[in-house]
Amino acid sequence: KKRFNIALLPGDGIGPEVISVAKNVLQQAGSLEGLEFNFQEMPVGGAALDLVGVPLPEESFAAAKQSDAILLGAIGGYKWDNNEKHLRPEMALFYLRRDLKVFANLRPATVLPQLVDASTLKREVAEGVDMMIVRELTGGIYFGEPRGIKTNENGEEVGFNTEFYAAHEIDRIARVAFETARKRRGKLCSVDKANVLDASILWRRRVTALASEYPDVELTHMYVDNAAMQLIRDPKQFDTIVTNNIFGDILSDEASMITGSIGMLPSASLGVSGPGLFEPIHGSAPDIAGQDKANPLATILSAAMLLKYGLGEEKAAKRIEDAVLDTLNKGFRTGDIYSPGNKLVGCKEMGEEVLKSV
Amino acid sequence: KKRFNIALLPGDGIGPEVISVAKNVLQQAGSLEGLEFNFQEMPVGGAALDLVGVPLPEESFAAAKQSDAILLGAIGGYKWDNNEKHLRPEMALFYLRRDLKVFANLRPATVLPQLVDASTLKREVAEGVDMMIVRELTGGIYFGEPRGIKTNENGEEVGFNTEFYAAHEIDRIARVAFETARKRRGKLCSVDKANVLDASILWRRRVTALASEYPDVELTHMYVDNAAMQLIRDPKQFDTIVTNNIFGDILSDEASMITGSIGMLPSASLGVSGPGLFEPIHGSAPDIAGQDKANPLATILSAAMLLKYGLGEEKAAKRIEDAVLDTLNKGFRTGDIYSPGNKLVGCKEMGEEVLKSV
Ligand SMILES: CC(C)[C@H](C(=O)O)[C@@H](O)C(=O)O
Ligand SMILES: CC(C)[C@H](C(=O)O)[C@@H](O)C(=O)O
Repeated sequence: KKRFNIALLPGDGIGPEVISVAKNVLQQAGSLEGLEFNFQEMPVGGAALDLVGVPLPEESFAAAKQSDAILLGAIGGYKWDNNEKHLRPEMALFYLRRDLKVFANLRPATVLPQLVDASTLKREVAEGVDMMIVRELTGGIYFGEPRGIKTNENGEEVGFNTEFYAAHEIDRIARVAFETARKRRGKLCSVDKANVLDASILWRRRVTALASEYPDVELTHMYVDNAAMQLIRDPKQFDTIVTNNIFGDILSDEASMITGSIGMLPSASLGVSGPGLFEPIHGSAPDIAGQDKANPLATILSAAMLLKYGLGEEKAAKRIEDAVLDTLNKGFRTGDIYSPGNKLVGCKEMGEEVLKSV
Repeated sequence: KKRFNIALLPGDGIGPEVISVAKNVLQQAGSLEGLEFNFQEMPVGGAALDLVGVPLPEESFAAAKQSDAILLGAIGGYKWDNNEKHLRPEMALFYLRRDLKVFANLRPATVLPQLVDASTLKREVAEGVDMMIVRELTGGIYFGEPRGIKTNENGEEVGFNTEFYAAHEIDRIARVAFETARKRRGKLCSVDKANVLDASILWRRRVTALASEYPDVELTHMYVDNAAMQLIRDPKQFDTIVTNNIFGDILSDEASMITGSIGMLPSASLGVSGPGLFEPIHGSAPDIAGQDKANPLATILSAAMLLKYGLGEEKAAKRIEDAVLDTLNKGFRTGDIYSPGNKLVGCKEMGEEVLKSV
């Protein structure tokens, strides 16, 4: 039997509900493939602030760091919205990303045939959308120095941040993207703003230089403003997209909304070595927390990504993916993806249905 | 009779065609309201590069600067795509914006009832969309220093740009936005990334502080990633949006694509004093240049914005807006907005039809 240590970071809002459901599914899929999991649950975000006064307690980070893979629920809530910056729940995410060095954020945006009507896009535009956004996660304007707010020589306040990329940071995320595209439909679109930003000029140059190592991948470039348009005009044109941290933040959220079912979308954040961080892309949804209304499928699919990308256990991952499709085919729907003619279920019941199909 | 000097900058691709049509419409609407125009046409962009080797010749800038308002066609084309940065057509736009100090870029995104099916969004989502994006145009990461590409102490190339806003830059664009919202439906949404960027924290603080001067305007704040989603989920929720240069670039293009008819959308760039710059938001479309296929309505509507925002001639502006609606109601359509049952016309014929209705 293979054994793995999994750190569970439920976080806030609906986080604990979806993690508890996804944990059961993960355990079941694993045990059918001869895997044994040792789960360790630790507080992060608002939950940690309430317990010990910091968003990412040292013990939580240590448990995450020492694990084989991390499954996170969701972070944040109104309650802590007016906290000072360093005492905001989201800081847990930054510290985790930075200190685990998970520079590659994989965000699939897929429109399932069963859910195509959930999109606000016309059926013929949304149908068949299947892309992967590879977002750089530990560099760029999120972390660049200098940054701050200060008073200048005229006594005026100024605010500033630095968009910064070193060649090796671009190269390593580009490699992940080329490899990803290679395993998909072989098309990679690099998104930048090279007609304005120097950091983008370097980005484009490095990505272009690597292309010769991946002759089986077709590389194109697109400006970020055009990409924001093309995602709406014809999202099917995209296979794999690679872009920087801030553009990736914006475009991956845009792409997820195009699918119409952000309650369905998982994500993976990977480094060179060490555990990966797996989490649904949706937020903590404080409005419906504790009401058994949340859609656990994004977290369940994040558990599948954990198996596939984090542990290399593709068979167990496939079990989960198939079980989710099966459950949707049987007509089970949480409120966020419900449409007439289907069976409305809560978070727990959805989890039980998936369990049956694993 | 009131006289105005208008600088015409046709630029590249379809620029000359749409400017020539819009000029006639502008002249006609003006003369019916007792306005006389003195037009001066000057080369910019690729056209200027070919003629004199620079994207914005001094004479062109001087003519623009001394005019009462500027109408620009479009800039750029494949031909100059591999030029070095300072010899790219787009540089003309930067120099114009920077040196005319037109810090406020107004970009309406409206779905006309006649064209609702042109959107890739479902009819019920697209119908009635009517928003104004106020984009800061002369600051932020587009112009911030330091910027560049250099080799660091380890011999590695690094690329960097600076997102920078001074308090007065935020205040002046926020005021334009509050005034704009006041004349519309009284709702202003300020878009930033204050959970990550220091420049955004200052942005949000300044905008919030100004709100007390505009008690009739309802101010909300939204993170840029969420805004990218909400524009797709429910674009009707927005009235006026204010945001920085780079977020405005991305979101205004996204919003324009939501309308499905970017061939219809005008823009205005305004400073404190001096001439405003008015241009369609679409590009130079080299593929169809010179074929009389371009949609001139975005430039015609830019001429309407020129009258309204540039010269304060609301009546003449209204004439043009009404004439455009009239022409659409009669069923005239260029290829980009054509749907069966309508009359397909070219650029010139569309212009003549609008002229008849002015
Ligand atoms: C919560 C926020 C800081 C975060 C980000 O901007 O990275 C989130 O939007 C995301 O995409 O994971
Ligand atoms: C051409 C380009 C430099 C420009 C910009 O980014 O501002 C354009 O996209 C625009 O929005 O006017």
